[in-house]
Amino acid sequence: MINKLVNKIRKTGAPIVVGLDPTMKFVPEHIQKKAFAEYGETLKGAAEAIWQYNKAIIDNIYDLIPAVKPQIAMYEQFGIEGLIAFQKTVEYCKQKELIVIGDIKRGDIGSTSEAYAVGHLGQVKVGNTMCRGFDEDFVTVNPYLGSDGVKPFIKVCSEEKKGIFVLVKTSNPSSGELQDRLVRAKAECGGAGVDRPLYELVGEQVAAWGAECMGESYSYIGAVVGATYPEQGKILREIMPKAFILVPGYGAQGGKGADLIHFFNKDGLGAIVNSSRGIIAAYQQEQYAEYGAENFADASRAAVLAMKEDIAQALAERA
Amino acid sequence: MINKLVNKIRKTGAPIVVGLDPTMKFVPEHIQKKAFAEYGETLKGAAEAIWQYNKAIIDNIYDLIPAVKPQIAMYEQFGIEGLIAFQKTVEYCKQKELIVIGDIKRGDIGSTSEAYAVGHLGQVKVGNTMCRGFDEDFVTVNPYLGSDGVKPFIKVCSEEKKGIFVLVKTSNPSSGELQDRLVRAKAECGGAGVDRPLYELVGEQVAAWGAECMGESYSYIGAVVGATYPEQGKILREIMPKAFILVPGYGAQGGKGADLIHFFNKDGLGAIVNSSRGIIAAYQQEQYAEYGAENFADASRAAVLAMKEDIAQALAERA
Repeated sequence: MINKLVNKIRKTGAPIVVGLDPTMKFVPEHIQKKAFAEYGETLKGAAEAIWQYNKAIIDNIYDLIPAVKPQIAMYEQFGIEGLIAFQKTVEYCKQKELIVIGDIKRGDIGSTSEAYAVGHLGQVKVGNTMCRGFDEDFVTVNPYLGSDGVKPFIKVCSEEKKGIFVLVKTSNPSSGELQDRLVRAKAECGGAGVDRPLYELVGEQVAAWGAECMGESYSYIGAVVGATYPEQGKILREIMPKAFILVPGYGAQGGKGADLIHFFNKDGLGAIVNSSRGIIAAYQQEQYAEYGAENFADASRAAVLAMKEDIAQALAERA
Repeated sequence: MINKLVNKIRKTGAPIVVGLDPTMKFVPEHIQKKAFAEYGETLKGAAEAIWQYNKAIIDNIYDLIPAVKPQIAMYEQFGIEGLIAFQKTVEYCKQKELIVIGDIKRGDIGSTSEAYAVGHLGQVKVGNTMCRGFDEDFVTVNPYLGSDGVKPFIKVCSEEKKGIFVLVKTSNPSSGELQDRLVRAKAECGGAGVDRPLYELVGEQVAAWGAECMGESYSYIGAVVGATYPEQGKILREIMPKAFILVPGYGAQGGKGADLIHFFNKDGLGAIVNSSRGIIAAYQQEQYAEYGAENFADASRAAVLAMKEDIAQALAERA
């Protein structure tokens, strides 16, 4: 699947993933009205609205991009009905030949992490039959519980030729509270060692896990590093040369094209940049206001094209 | 809800939570057969089997304990159908007056963490209507993304009078890989400061968050600290005197009654000890084999009584 991702990025020329993170505030009124007329102001009504919203956006942008990243929290907030919309979205994107990165940030221990891995990437045994639950292509994983929590995902990735992105340095303002903590070095060879931030150690683990799980040029085990932290991105790029980096925080969270260049390798690959509301709610921005709420999906297409151009330009200027 | 938890622990004399973490390996064959006869070897068949299994156990133990802790991963592995069984289990336990701790270990940033908080503890706005998704009483939260990820949960807890347990020091063998890392102290008052493990800093954050969100004697903001790390439990008990500690790792993971005393305050409160497979799959242990698979729920009841006795004895010996 990492090879497929690399190929699709080459083909589209767009190292871009669109975050399908719908909230009711983004869904145009005409879509909400129609869904509520059918199902009422219920969880089912909300789920229908976000599904129709997603579908229109996917139909308008699928030919431009290699991948989408639905954020499961935005569906889970609507309970079972929301999760049915998540599943429909995943299936529809796969029909459109998009690679699906489930942004689930799961992480637990032993058999529990295995259950998440199986439910989202693999197959679960029911009697003598193997069944699939959500069936994304990649998922994001939280490493706070250590390798017990990550290895079950790696096992399933090896079996299924799928992948994960481990949270290393997240894009949010408070990510440093734990991730930036300077950790005392183990005194090696009698020396005192140098204190280093926690995210570097996680990055090293990602590189080590990834070495056991290589695709053609990149590993099945990638990392999440926020666009909002370009300097850290530069260091992490060196620590994990074979890891694909999923980069959130572009656009609405403040990251710009020029911040992104350090996340890429010299081959112009190795990173995929996410934008969520910058694309799916483009019609609500001044820049794309002319499209109007009725043509929200056209605004999304325009925003994808602008993002593609911004990144291409930044990479060209580096070269 | 924390006051209700304290009262129920006092009333039952059992600072115990039963982990409803069903896997197909635990579900007796007669239940599996019946479910597969009705729905086939499908996700729906598996979900029916774990629901019937849960229901029988709940019916047999609900009068002995204050709370249950369904682990959502074990349901999520069966996709939507599994999550429907999760929801049925949550609702059924609440009908039985049990407090439900959703072991979801979610944690994300800003609006995404808010979506999880709303979906599991609060209400989501659909048009002009407020709806509830999963509606547990407490959930577990992963702190790796810092306070951005935790505060949305605290906000919903304040509104709903519900609570969370933040992962501080987990029970698994590799939990130390990140959580035990010695973190360089901030040089305060010109001094050099003392390096401290990461989990202590998270414990301090839990205490600070909890101070804003107090029940009568304990805070709505609790912590997860594994029974397998009693020494760390002792230190964390002092760092977070008002936090209820959810203690996994008893029984199957190796924790014993005597390991638990440091997690409790002098008032005999402040901790609630989880056992999952030790209770729900008791019939598979040599000690309870006489019950047989047909009477698995009676074996679970016997295991709860033995656990209650083990903890009571350990606490009595301390006094």
